[in-house]
Order: sequence, then structure tokens, then C-alpha cells
Amino acid sequence: MTMTTFIPPTRLLMGPGPSPVHWRVLSALARPTLGHLDPIFLSLMEEVKALLRYTFRTTNEMTLPISGPGSAGMEACFVNLVEPGDKVIVCRNGVFGTRMIEIVERCQGTPVVIDVPWGRAVPPERVAEAFQSHPDARILAFVHAETSTGVLTDAKSLCAIAQQHGALTIVDAVTSLGGVPLEVDGWGIDAVYSGTQKCLSCPPGLSPVSLNQRALEKVRLRKSKVQSWFLDLSLIMDYWAGEQRVYHHTAPVNAIYGLHEALLMLKQEGIKASWERHSRNHQALRSGLQSIGLDYLVPRDEQLPSLNAVNIPADIDDAAFRRAMYDRHEIEIGAGLGELAGKIWRIGLMGEGSRSSVVEWCLSCVDATVRTARDNTAAAA
Amino acid sequence: MTMTTFIPPTRLLMGPGPSPVHWRVLSALARPTLGHLDPIFLSLMEEVKALLRYTFRTTNEMTLPISGPGSAGMEACFVNLVEPGDKVIVCRNGVFGTRMIEIVERCQGTPVVIDVPWGRAVPPERVAEAFQSHPDARILAFVHAETSTGVLTDAKSLCAIAQQHGALTIVDAVTSLGGVPLEVDGWGIDAVYSGTQKCLSCPPGLSPVSLNQRALEKVRLRKSKVQSWFLDLSLIMDYWAGEQRVYHHTAPVNAIYGLHEALLMLKQEGIKASWERHSRNHQALRSGLQSIGLDYLVPRDEQLPSLNAVNIPADIDDAAFRRAMYDRHEIEIGAGLGELAGKIWRIGLMGEGSRSSVVEWCLSCVDATVRTARDNTAAAA
Repeated sequence: MTMTTFIPPTRLLMGPGPSPVHWRVLSALARPTLGHLDPIFLSLMEEVKALLRYTFRTTNEMTLPISGPGSAGMEACFVNLVEPGDKVIVCRNGVFGTRMIEIVERCQGTPVVIDVPWGRAVPPERVAEAFQSHPDARILAFVHAETSTGVLTDAKSLCAIAQQHGALTIVDAVTSLGGVPLEVDGWGIDAVYSGTQKCLSCPPGLSPVSLNQRALEKVRLRKSKVQSWFLDLSLIMDYWAGEQRVYHHTAPVNAIYGLHEALLMLKQEGIKASWERHSRNHQALRSGLQSIGLDYLVPRDEQLPSLNAVNIPADIDDAAFRRAMYDRHEIEIGAGLGELAGKIWRIGLMGEGSRSSVVEWCLSCVDATVRTARDNTAAAA
Repeated sequence: MTMTTFIPPTRLLMGPGPSPVHWRVLSALARPTLGHLDPIFLSLMEEVKALLRYTFRTTNEMTLPISGPGSAGMEACFVNLVEPGDKVIVCRNGVFGTRMIEIVERCQGTPVVIDVPWGRAVPPERVAEAFQSHPDARILAFVHAETSTGVLTDAKSLCAIAQQHGALTIVDAVTSLGGVPLEVDGWGIDAVYSGTQKCLSCPPGLSPVSLNQRALEKVRLRKSKVQSWFLDLSLIMDYWAGEQRVYHHTAPVNAIYGLHEALLMLKQEGIKASWERHSRNHQALRSGLQSIGLDYLVPRDEQLPSLNAVNIPADIDDAAFRRAMYDRHEIEIGAGLGELAGKIWRIGLMGEGSRSSVVEWCLSCVDATVRTARDNTAAAA
């Protein structure tokens, strides 16, 4: 195998993430590495925490990026909050709800599963019923924005129900943070995690999380140690916020430079302006795709603006279409996952990808690729 | 808090890691992000695995970077290999052995601890004795290169003893990989993990691991699921090497660009040439520090070339000295950890930091800072 320096091809990232990364963020990644205990790096960490609080719309002290991708943030929330024997109501309407159940089981919790058809939001009344049947449930977990289907669930209503029953909430905001309204304090979310490679337009590798005092109190009262040393939030917090800044693990310094710059750009735009931009560009993409004859998987009022799942027309070959989008147009769009594999395409409009010029270019390329596929089929017939 | 784009100060990183990162690696980090399932990125992953095999000196198929810092790689090895009730002999001669014990306990394993004074290598006879007392021990775990003390343990002999007793080995090679001889296949190491921010001179954030068939067979025969979903090697392997490349988590794409470039540079230099360079520059630093009057913590024949722990002279203030090295000379050196806090400085010569020009400059600055500290003390007296 002869190897040389890797030069990536040009790609417009319109899949389910990673999303396009702005040059300001790429440049930040390339700045010289500092030590993870350098006083100047510790100051940068303070800014990152403040910027994440702005983005999550919270005052939670425990707001920081976990040193791993979104799945690490998910696992961090569950392993810290779920104790053996805890009953956890988990809503499953896509791949990521399925993953939550898997993790609850590995924490020796007892999942109570609310199954919702993939492509539909979680109905609040189903959650209310689950709490009536399981009044001893201690946690409600659900996905705010399902990346596998493009569904947005009404997190505010679900959290209100959990609060009525004295349960904590764990919310997956991987594809919502920065792109759609998310009010961690306003909705009373107890624990939330996200990823950097969606609406924040950073490379993948970090997972912002935020936990409120109610959640931390449950962690504090645990009878057993958190099963993961790497993801033990008490130890992580000693490094990220303790007076002594006790070494836990070596923080991914350059990735944090990138996150800082991306969050700074988001603050400069304004979080509400970003939400509006994501909504506006989604509307334009939706109209355009429908004109081309592509239908959405998800009912309009449950649609997530940052991830657009469209049904693959019966006369178009899934893999060949996506390959043509790569090869001819240098655009990445996403395949379906799990039970939706082969049935949908997932088109992301996240962060830097949510721009009107991107929407127009994408529509033009999708249209051309659909026409070519149909012409080829006609010629072969 | 007014925030702007972060511009790090100039620092020569001579602590316990991160080490200085070459501009080729920094540039690689800043290349445009690809999707984690892009066929071209999948090809890059193949190259990274091949380069890691070269560096670990192994043919193990399961050789890949875990998507988190060294602590995540450590935890990955333990949570996959240790089943509840497994007896694990752990050698503790510094901070990282202590951490291993903590993780074994969280996996519900039973640690059998061999305590060795901090600053000394693990004597093979102590390991042989432990196996005699605990013939049912299933795993031996130890740190090849203790970053907290600068000690190199004879991994070859320890692995041979474990093999005689039919036990698996888990070896921490965080500060040895790339900088000192490490023969994963030659010594019969069953599971090994490392970090990117030491002798590989990458930013922190990834943890190369390698497991042989014997280790994977134990994982395959587990009675219970691995307690971490994020670090479940069977799932990770499906993404890194499976025919279908099943999505597990979103790989940290840009960090992997950086690792690829760093490993490529190491291969271009040659692994043995790198080992020799680390040894040569260590000898020069050692002579120079001794001329200044600084003594090593570790006996010469147990000394790790990549991390030099020297005793802090009684008349020099630890924190003030390190602060002066930062402020006046833009050099980071490391403090002592745990029971060695306030007693030693840790001077790293890792990867790009292991150069004769760096050694000379460092010696000159250490000498000047020691003299200034003593002059100040004399003036105050």
C-alpha cells in the first residue's frame, strides 16, 4: 500500500451529518496545540462553557463538551443517571431511541418502551399513559430531533409530563442544537446531549452536554459508582470546573479550538437568527423537492428543518442515485438507516449547509440526477 | 465576557503530553471534512489501520483508533476483556496503574494489586509471585511507560510470565508507542492501547488500540454484553472493518486526517529510527540536566526516554519555576501527579519534541530559570 498525504475530494455535505465546516472553524483546528492544563487553555474552556450555555439556553453550571462523539455524550447521560434497577421510559421512533434502550439495558436499568412508527413524532398522550402504567418510572428519555427520520418531537410537552410525575428527562438534541428552538431551562430538561457535526458545523468528535441540579443530585445520591470511569461526570467536572482543575483525561485541545470558533460564529449570528435561517431554508428545499416530485416521509407539522427525509421513487435505484450525486455533483446525501434503509434519502440542511445558495444548487443536482436515472431506465427498456 | 477568535500563545510543549505537533499534522486537521461513510474516507481508514499496525508492530486485524483520548482506549480494553468476577492482576507503580484498578472495579472484576514504589519499574518476579498466589487470574495489566514517573517496565518479560499462566495481557503504551521499542506481536501482547498526543505528536483525542485473536476470543465468549455501548469493540469493528461498514458512531473525521499524517511521517522516518532518535535526545537531555544539578527520579536502567522526571531542588519553588518557564521562555514542563506532586518536574521529549535543538534550548532555559530563582532567593535573604 503506497501512501501519501491525504487530500480529500470536494464534497458538499448534505447528509445527516457531518455538515459543511466553515473555514474559520477549520483554521481554528490547525492552530498550535496547547497543554490541557495551560492556564490560557483553561480560560478558553471557560469561554466554551459560556458559549454552550448560550446555545443550550441554560444557566446549568454542568455544561461542557464530552471528549467523544454524540454517542459518548448519550452514554455519559445514561451511565451517570441510570442506576441498576431504575425504570426508564424510552420513546422509540427511530434509530436513536433504539440505541437508548440498548444503553439503558447495559446500565442494568429497566426500559419501558413506547413504540412510535418511524417517521412520526412521539405523541404526548402516549407518554402520559406510560407514566400512568409505570408511576415508579424515574426517567423519561426521548430524541428531540430524530436524525434517522427527520422528525421533531414536542420536547416541551414531554418534559412537562415527566415533571408532573417527578421523573427526570434525558433529551437527545444531537440534530436540534443550534438549528431549531431548544430551551433547556425553559422546558425544564434535566439532561441533554448533542453533537458538534450537525447544526454547529464543527467536525465530529465532541458531544456537548448539560445537566441541571436535579440531575446532578441524582448522580450525587447514587448507591454505586458510575460504571464508566471515562464518562464519570463528577470526575470530568473536577477538570472542567473544579478550583484545582484536577487532571482526568487529556482534553482534545484542537477539537475544542474548533468548537469555540463555531460557537462564537453562532453567537455572532444569534441563536434565534440561526433557528429562523434553518426554518427558512428548509421551506425552500421542501417546495423544491416537492416540485421535482419527491414526497416527504414525515407529516409537515412534525418535520425537523435540519434533516429532510424523502421517499425514494419506485423507479430510482437508491445506491446508484447517491453514487451519482457523489460522482457527478460532489454532493453527499444520506441513505436510510435501519428499517428505512433503501426507502428514504436523508438531506441535511445543517449549520453552514443551511444556506439559500446550497438549497438551490442541491435542488438543481437532485433534479438532474432524477432525470438522468429515468432517461437511462427508458433507454434500457 | 467578550469573546473573540482564540489565538493560542507560542508554547514549546515539553510536558507529559500533548507534545509539539508538526505543521503537516496541523494542516491535515484543517482539510475539509468528509462524511464518515464516504467511500474515500473509508479508504483513508484502511490506511490508518495499516499505519497503526506498522507502528504497533503487529498484524492484528483489530487495530484502530478509538474515538476518544487515551483514557477511552484504556476503558475500551478493560470493559471488553474483563467480565464480572474476573481476577485481574494489576501492577501499580504510578497514576495510570491506579486508574486501571479503578476501571477493573467498575467492570466488576477483582483486582489483585502488585504495589511497586512510584518511580520504579515492575519487577518480573513480583508478577510471577502474584500468579503463583492467584493461579486463577485471567488477565495481567500493567503500564509499559508510566507517564506519571518516567519509568519503563520490561513488557516483554511480564507478557512471557502471563503467557506461562494462560492469562491475557492488557498493556498501557500511551507514552511508549512510537518512542521506545514496543513489539506487540513479538512480545505476545494481547491488548494494547495508546494515545496520539505523546510520541506520535498528534493533538489529543484519539486512542489507538490493538487486540489479537486470543483477546477477541475472550470478548466473543463473554456471557454478558460489554457494559459500554460506545466502546463495544464488536460494534466498532463492524464500522472500521466490516464488509457492510455498519454505522456505529460518527468518526472524528478531521482528527483521523491528523493521525494519518502523523503516522505517515513516522513511517517515512522509520519506526526504529524514531526509537533511536528518542533515545539519543534523552541521553543529551539527561547529561545536561545533571550538569545543572538536577537528579533523575528513576534509576538509569529503568528510565523511559520520552519522559524525564527530575527531583525539584529543595530551594526552588515548584509552581513559580513552572510559571517562569511558561512566561519567560514559552516552555511548558509538567508538574508531578499524585504522591509526586510538588516533588518532581516532568520533562517530555516526545515525537516532534525529541530534537537536539529542543534539548539545547530547553537546557539553556532550565539553567537560566534555576539561576534566577536562586538569585532571587539570595537577594531576599
